Amino acid sequence: MTRRLRYAMVGGGQGAFIGAVHRKALALDGQAELVAGALASTPERALASGRELGLADDRNHADWQSLLDDELRRAADERIDFVSIVTPNHLHHPVAKAFAAAGIHVVCDKPLVHTSEQAEDLLRTVERSGTVFGVTYNYSGYPMVREARALVAAGAIGEVRKVVVEYHQGWLATKLEGSDNKQAGWRTDPARSGAAGALGDIGSHAENLVATVTGLELESLCADLGTFVPGRRLDDDASLLLRFQGGARGVLMATQIAVGCENDLRLRVFGTTGTLDWRQEQPDTLVHAPIDGPRRLLTRGSPWLGESARLATRLPAGHPEAFIEAFANVYLGVIARIRAQQQGFAPDPLHADHPTLADGARGVRFIEKALESAASERKWTAF
Amino acid sequence: MTRRLRYAMVGGGQGAFIGAVHRKALALDGQAELVAGALASTPERALASGRELGLADDRNHADWQSLLDDELRRAADERIDFVSIVTPNHLHHPVAKAFAAAGIHVVCDKPLVHTSEQAEDLLRTVERSGTVFGVTYNYSGYPMVREARALVAAGAIGEVRKVVVEYHQGWLATKLEGSDNKQAGWRTDPARSGAAGALGDIGSHAENLVATVTGLELESLCADLGTFVPGRRLDDDASLLLRFQGGARGVLMATQIAVGCENDLRLRVFGTTGTLDWRQEQPDTLVHAPIDGPRRLLTRGSPWLGESARLATRLPAGHPEAFIEAFANVYLGVIARIRAQQQGFAPDPLHADHPTLADGARGVRFIEKALESAASERKWTAF
Amino acid sequence: MTRRLRYAMVGGGQGAFIGAVHRKALALDGQAELVAGALASTPERALASGRELGLADDRNHADWQSLLDDELRRAADERIDFVSIVTPNHLHHPVAKAFAAAGIHVVCDKPLVHTSEQAEDLLRTVERSGTVFGVTYNYSGYPMVREARALVAAGAIGEVRKVVVEYHQGWLATKLEGSDNKQAGWRTDPARSGAAGALGDIGSHAENLVATVTGLELESLCADLGTFVPGRRLDDDASLLLRFQGGARGVLMATQIAVGCENDLRLRVFGTTGTLDWRQEQPDTLVHAPIDGPRRLLTRGSPWLGESARLATRLPAGHPEAFIEAFANVYLGVIARIRAQQQGFAPDPLHADHPTLADGARGVRFIEKALESAASERKWTAF
Amino acid sequence: MTRRLRYAMVGGGQGAFIGAVHRKALALDGQAELVAGALASTPERALASGRELGLADDRNHADWQSLLDDELRRAADERIDFVSIVTPNHLHHPVAKAFAAAGIHVVCDKPLVHTSEQAEDLLRTVERSGTVFGVTYNYSGYPMVREARALVAAGAIGEVRKVVVEYHQGWLATKLEGSDNKQAGWRTDPARSGAAGALGDIGSHAENLVATVTGLELESLCADLGTFVPGRRLDDDASLLLRFQGGARGVLMATQIAVGCENDLRLRVFGTTGTLDWRQEQPDTLVHAPIDGPRRLLTRGSPWLGESARLATRLPAGHPEAFIEAFANVYLGVIARIRAQQQGFAPDPLHADHPTLADGARGVRFIEKALESAASERKWTAF
Repeated sequence: MTRRLRYAMVGGGQGAFIGAVHRKALALDGQAELVAGALASTPERALASGRELGLADDRNHADWQSLLDDELRRAADERIDFVSIVTPNHLHHPVAKAFAAAGIHVVCDKPLVHTSEQAEDLLRTVERSGTVFGVTYNYSGYPMVREARALVAAGAIGEVRKVVVEYHQGWLATKLEGSDNKQAGWRTDPARSGAAGALGDIGSHAENLVATVTGLELESLCADLGTFVPGRRLDDDASLLLRFQGGARGVLMATQIAVGCENDLRLRVFGTTGTLDWRQEQPDTLVHAPIDGPRRLLTRGSPWLGESARLATRLPAGHPEAFIEAFANVYLGVIARIRAQQQGFAPDPLHADHPTLADGARGVRFIEKALESAASERKWTAF
Repeated sequence: MTRRLRYAMVGGGQGAFIGAVHRKALALDGQAELVAGALASTPERALASGRELGLADDRNHADWQSLLDDELRRAADERIDFVSIVTPNHLHHPVAKAFAAAGIHVVCDKPLVHTSEQAEDLLRTVERSGTVFGVTYNYSGYPMVREARALVAAGAIGEVRKVVVEYHQGWLATKLEGSDNKQAGWRTDPARSGAAGALGDIGSHAENLVATVTGLELESLCADLGTFVPGRRLDDDASLLLRFQGGARGVLMATQIAVGCENDLRLRVFGTTGTLDWRQEQPDTLVHAPIDGPRRLLTRGSPWLGESARLATRLPAGHPEAFIEAFANVYLGVIARIRAQQQGFAPDPLHADHPTLADGARGVRFIEKALESAASERKWTAF
Repeated sequence: MTRRLRYAMVGGGQGAFIGAVHRKALALDGQAELVAGALASTPERALASGRELGLADDRNHADWQSLLDDELRRAADERIDFVSIVTPNHLHHPVAKAFAAAGIHVVCDKPLVHTSEQAEDLLRTVERSGTVFGVTYNYSGYPMVREARALVAAGAIGEVRKVVVEYHQGWLATKLEGSDNKQAGWRTDPARSGAAGALGDIGSHAENLVATVTGLELESLCADLGTFVPGRRLDDDASLLLRFQGGARGVLMATQIAVGCENDLRLRVFGTTGTLDWRQEQPDTLVHAPIDGPRRLLTRGSPWLGESARLATRLPAGHPEAFIEAFANVYLGVIARIRAQQQGFAPDPLHADHPTLADGARGVRFIEKALESAASERKWTAF
Repeated sequence: MTRRLRYAMVGGGQGAFIGAVHRKALALDGQAELVAGALASTPERALASGRELGLADDRNHADWQSLLDDELRRAADERIDFVSIVTPNHLHHPVAKAFAAAGIHVVCDKPLVHTSEQAEDLLRTVERSGTVFGVTYNYSGYPMVREARALVAAGAIGEVRKVVVEYHQGWLATKLEGSDNKQAGWRTDPARSGAAGALGDIGSHAENLVATVTGLELESLCADLGTFVPGRRLDDDASLLLRFQGGARGVLMATQIAVGCENDLRLRVFGTTGTLDWRQEQPDTLVHAPIDGPRRLLTRGSPWLGESARLATRLPAGHPEAFIEAFANVYLGVIARIRAQQQGFAPDPLHADHPTLADGARGVRFIEKALESAASERKWTAF
């Protein structure tokens, strides 16, 4: 049996949502085990959270600096292989920088950081340290997203002309941040979430999905950002027109005031000879419409899918896989890269398949440029 | 039995598409019969088309002027009650103006005319003549569109915050106008179609659908118009950001290069307390998501629908109605108004329910403003 | 222009449902016009119904015998070409027999008659008279049903192994026949509907759909018929196991107590190398699952469909057609056969495509055998 | 932190499918850890499988007897809390009996055993030993199945009249057992699978789903079992008519020759005042059609769901959960019962929610009675 990697988590303690998803995703495949943590922003909650999760007392820390110091003191065969950072956004930069600088591999949630300066700082840090860095744009881990990416790359829809990506949620249609909902609280707080609300929280996923599947590079954009809920401090609705290098165009919508929408992320890619259509809420299906025949319903687990989708699949067709498995696939990619590096061979791109620091940095730039456009009377802004 | 109205048709002869739909829609309910016509742009095809449709020789005309002259010579009990204009767009203005000025009621296809000047000219003409004027924005005739309109008006989704309307077609993804396809030919020819391609042909339907259902009035827009197919002379792809009076926002997409999409018109309206979602390809269903309960699938023919949807319904629930019935509903609205005027009473708005000349004029202005935005570096343009 | 055929209608007057559908279907394509009728079961309602429909007084009859007598007195160039019989079931046999015996072509609603004796009597009558006889199993007229039939015939799914057909309605989940609902009244009355309720009313459609698409011949069946609504006199729920000649098997469900189901007729055909799946409530789509590739969504109007579907299509793909068009297609088939006979040439099977008297007779036998099985402790009964 | 339970697995080694699913399901929630095993039917594969999974050498056994002996020798604080039996069916009885008799809690895959005699033997054994016994009818673990059960119990659809359950798979449409597919091999082998093929493998799931959701008890059934693939030794297609105590009726279909169907388990329950409709391939949605309003789309994670669905939910609405989570929910139920017993309090039924030995025994009886009916000329057979 291959050795399980050891990991620590920063953030994700009591009251958090996504930290538990990261842990379940890692538990699912059994390739890594949680051995240490600094799980919340106050010492009391941090330590209590660690006890709940069964961390040993000497690896359950009140803050992330203490965690890092402790890890650096430990012997190699005990030290964590990577840290998973699942705090509110404002902590991503200092934590990720410190661990990476210390030579510890990093997985960080999205959006990566608040500013492009921070992103570039991270890029420089990682370049120096040589650590692996993954960003949990989890939707990129769905097998049918990988199939879509493979189909575009293989020319199955010809040249991409237009992209429509939309991310409709409704949970912030009212002023939920006025309640004790922790998720709503930090996501609508500029100090913790950054200058973007829906744009940063889910618009960044939409941007990444487009980039992942199509490989297109943005040339310019025009953003209309709105705040519909009275008293809210960040945008809760974003609509953007996009132009890509090479002539493709796009529309990106990200909203959290769409009553009745749960987590409705959808991507359509229109090419010269075909169309792809994928929805996160039915992630096992990808519609492929070739120009010369009927629409085809591609499903996860089918023998006619490509290798990257196959590798991201655990169960036979019709036995649905979902959100946690997609998350786990991102982690499997990072872990494959870490193992390759530890064992001194070049990572196999089919296995070391995960969003990178460059993806995260581009996502930050996307948010900045959208904010810039919105702030300058919604003018078109070069990317 | 109520007397059948008599109507003439201008356009819609051999090789045309939509004229036959108008005729079938009128035949379906048996409230009007075709008695005269000038059915094509050349005398030969016009006369041949009329013979095929069984027009009497003396009412089968080589051109619309001859038709009009002849009708005006006829006695009232023989003269047409209305004319249906289904020519390419460039003829809408002269034909509609002449018939309306002569006191004959008019039904005209959309987009109404090429310019706002023409539209205003028509408005003045009709104001003087007092004729009924209907515009066949046929999608407004679907029962579930009328239900959506009624729900918005009744406050079922609160105040409208955001509208997403999209009209995806794929039939012009290649240079079909290079073949002998008549539809593709005139629709991509600026002389006959006007200065807008997809924007005018289907974007105008999308604009009308938003206005019909929400009653919102445009305040400004930002349009990105593209021509993807090499050699095409008009736009085949349009993406717009919209702002409405009162603070609502929107996105409008109209494209004819979306391979695999057939006639995929969809409207989503997001309000403070609910959402509506309707797709033309499954027209008998309207999804209503209230903020305080599960999504509800409203279906045509259900007892819990409102009066305007009920009146637009012919068959029990589950016995699907479709495109032609929606078209017929628009005509029933116009006919109800004509009958009311003929009989000297005020039209019942529930029955005289159809898009009006004002709708048509607003649609022309929408196209103009979108072209203006696109031409001025895609700047936001006041409506 | 080809001459419009003249037809009379028996039944279908005030308060009826399906008669108006027949008339709209015939009006849609303009190939036949209603010139005479005996539209209801009482003279008063019959005459009032005819006046509403604009029948001339001398062709508006108090009863069907008077209608028939009058037609036979008329000259050939005035006489009806066919009669459309849309009465409750108990009148099908005498009316159809009388008109056919008199040499007038007949279209009769389903189920054809009450007993196989009556069906054979009709078959003999028609054999003698040589008249055309169509049965309005309207679902056979859907273009995608015809495509399914063509695909099976062409071997696209190999040899048929299993058929699952279901017809779920909910409108009789309560004792609607206790109200003034005319449809519920006669359909649950053995004297007018025959010995079968849901089995006859909609189970017969299901049987016909299977036979139309697969061509399979029943070998034996086992029927469980139930009456769930207290006080109802006929079955409102039927579940059958089927065996076909050659080894295929099947399940047929027909129920009218399925709350929330509207008109949910669905057919699945499982073959050795593929599957077909069609639902009446989304009639423009047919799912074809080949064994060696992804499911394909075939849509009406697509260029890759066969000739029989193409001929049954009026509008481009994405412009939905529905119930009335399917009905109209059945009539177009009958009319094509009548015209061929009138003009003395052999009918083209692609055009003269409609359910025949033999289909109707087989449907009656199906009902009889199901009743026989249910009555004999639900034993398997040879067909 | 609550102590993790310790478990051993019998079966589920190299080449198996479902064993890995059990392990992932248990890993997901981290409430139990695999510490021992006898993972395959040959010593070599068993030991190799255990090494792959990281079992300690002294807890990695060549056969299940050795595993059991070893566990019984161990101290209580080291001994497994339960065994998970995921072998082919023929080993369920001896293994489950031996462990239960020894006082070790058991989770066993379905169908439970080959005969009702074996099932009753197990029931007696467990009655004596007092051990917890869970059966992994995994579909019962889906949150929306639990919601359906709660809705029926609460009277939301009135009295159940009819049930239609279907389980369509296509993977055995060809003679896959002729290849080296282990799953196809043992599932079509009477010695290992029992006397039933599709009926036992998936029909048993369908039976359990009906019983779970409705609580109805079978009164009689009529089964038509077929073997379509030449050379196959067990049924690959089953169609049954059902009658339940109290008057409800049903149809059950289970087939593995439905080309293009993946794992299409669907349950519809028709009551006097409403209908429920659930499909395994979109497990997060349950359709509820009340008699007096539109269909409602209930989704996992919504605030208006009941407690049992809420407890089975890990992620917010729109973040799909799927097959493994449902499996995990069954295990959580068993684990809750084990913990309650270990701690000496009565299990909370909301938490100790899992299929029991009685469910397993009833499932065996269902298979026997279906085989009996099929063998006796498909006569109705009392349950």
